[in-house]
Amino acid sequence: MDELRNKILESAEVLPGGVLKVDSFLNHQIDVKLVDKMAKEWYERFKEEKITKILTIESAGIALSTMVATYFGVPVVYAKKSRNASFGNDYYSTHVISYTHGQAYDVYISKKVLDKNDRVLLVDDFLANGSAMKILIHLAEASGAKVAGAAVAIEKSYLGGGKDIRSIGYRLESLVKIKELGHGKIIFED
Amino acid sequence: MDELRNKILESAEVLPGGVLKVDSFLNHQIDVKLVDKMAKEWYERFKEEKITKILTIESAGIALSTMVATYFGVPVVYAKKSRNASFGNDYYSTHVISYTHGQAYDVYISKKVLDKNDRVLLVDDFLANGSAMKILIHLAEASGAKVAGAAVAIEKSYLGGGKDIRSIGYRLESLVKIKELGHGKIIFED
Repeated sequence: MDELRNKILESAEVLPGGVLKVDSFLNHQIDVKLVDKMAKEWYERFKEEKITKILTIESAGIALSTMVATYFGVPVVYAKKSRNASFGNDYYSTHVISYTHGQAYDVYISKKVLDKNDRVLLVDDFLANGSAMKILIHLAEASGAKVAGAAVAIEKSYLGGGKDIRSIGYRLESLVKIKELGHGKIIFED
Repeated sequence: MDELRNKILESAEVLPGGVLKVDSFLNHQIDVKLVDKMAKEWYERFKEEKITKILTIESAGIALSTMVATYFGVPVVYAKKSRNASFGNDYYSTHVISYTHGQAYDVYISKKVLDKNDRVLLVDDFLANGSAMKILIHLAEASGAKVAGAAVAIEKSYLGGGKDIRSIGYRLESLVKIKELGHGKIIFED
């Protein structure tokens, strides 16, 4: 997607450790006009999929998911990193290690908000080694919901997470794919 | 705002300790159609204020802020609860104690995303004792930005936080105000 690629080239920074900093338009500060175009693009790609819910993990995916959900006319569910006392025992949970921050945490989804009648579109800002996306797949399927697809803004394709997810049969649509990142250099696929 | 009040009466739960659980439509699961109406209402109330940024704290305020920002045509900035390594020393920070969860945490805003030329609208889901909103005011003003107003979905007016904030001169617009909460009972003002 050209607008996102151009914005990355114009405004993102490459930090040591292969971190692509997009704080000025996607995390921390959100360019809502850009996010709206991204959401519309995903809607065009997945509109035949009878999506009933958009599923993401707090916090970075929430703004993207909210805009996507307005196109589909369905609710957003975001997996929480702290278990709300009010969940009681009625939740699905799993353990995640963040690629970017190296921190381990658990994520939770209440059993009340997803079930076997749902067809979910998973949304996230980055796909690196794919661990966060695999967690979303796991949580969605634990509820009995069908994963209709996964929508990612920026795939770091050199890390192989996207290849993994496609190889096990999921439809993953990334708006840009980065094949090389480092020393101030960002090289996109095609 | 009638739609929000009706949704609370229909779907919210009152938990021990004065917690109003809105996980089914405002946190965790987000009713995007309702949030769109809320955003439009705030836009009507603040549209003359020359807003340049919407400011909130992750995570609960992000969906609301994203929809509000689409009406104003401006970016969202969300204060982060973990400091991104990439902020370096260029951030404003302050300490918060969550009313709902009792946890203490620090929040951060990069100096690159707010400055003295900004007129910000602060957005949050709940206003209880007002500590989170006062933090947003503090962070915005530390940057030199002007606080043009504060938009809250649900004000627990019996806790006095809203009164405090109005008494020090800020314009605070809450979509519903709750004057009594407990034992399964939710009583709104008016």
